[in-house]
Amino acid sequence: MQVNSISWSETEKEVAHQAFDKAYEREINALLEEVRTQASNITEIDQIWRLHDFLSARRHDIDGKYDYRYSVLIFVFARLLKEKWLDMSDLEGLERAKLTKIAALTRM
Amino acid sequence: MQVNSISWSETEKEVAHQAFDKAYEREINALLEEVRTQASNITEIDQIWRLHDFLSARRHDIDGKYDYRYSVLIFVFARLLKEKWLDMSDLEGLERAKLTKIAALTRM
Repeated sequence: MQVNSISWSETEKEVAHQAFDKAYEREINALLEEVRTQASNITEIDQIWRLHDFLSARRHDIDGKYDYRYSVLIFVFARLLKEKWLDMSDLEGLERAKLTKIAALTRM
Repeated sequence: MQVNSISWSETEKEVAHQAFDKAYEREINALLEEVRTQASNITEIDQIWRLHDFLSARRHDIDGKYDYRYSVLIFVFARLLKEKWLDMSDLEGLERAKLTKIAALTRM
């Protein structure tokens, strides 16, 4: 699948930006909620180190995942769909060829 | 200062163990409280990463500090005194020579 050569219209760039930001906001809000819940239930040191491990993993994951380069955006969106931070309706406005590629990638 | 050759009587070992555990418990309780407070006030992702950085530093610090080997215990106690996790009364029962060495180390 050739994705590096895919071109994005100005309208598509806008849709993409909004979808990207929406996914990020949803994931961060879920993380904020999770951290507050975990932290409020902490009574033992092991739970602190588990929280630390959890944050290390989430930070690494989030830092790597939210990569807004048009050359990789198809893959990023496929992953965000798989992980339910986006649904197809968030990508409405992208051309059919891109949506088809993204949908195909979510099934891999 | 020769500390490797210091011998510890059974009574001193008991005092040392109790003081060591007490310091650890105090420091961990303070950490638990700090984490709960920080986490309950989290509203932004930057605060989550700051909490993560804070936990990374505390974990590294605590893992290195609580080293119960008699060859290093004099230094460990001096540090715990400096950091106020112990006070001299917690070490009552150690022989005067050890207390003098520990007190001298806290002034370094």
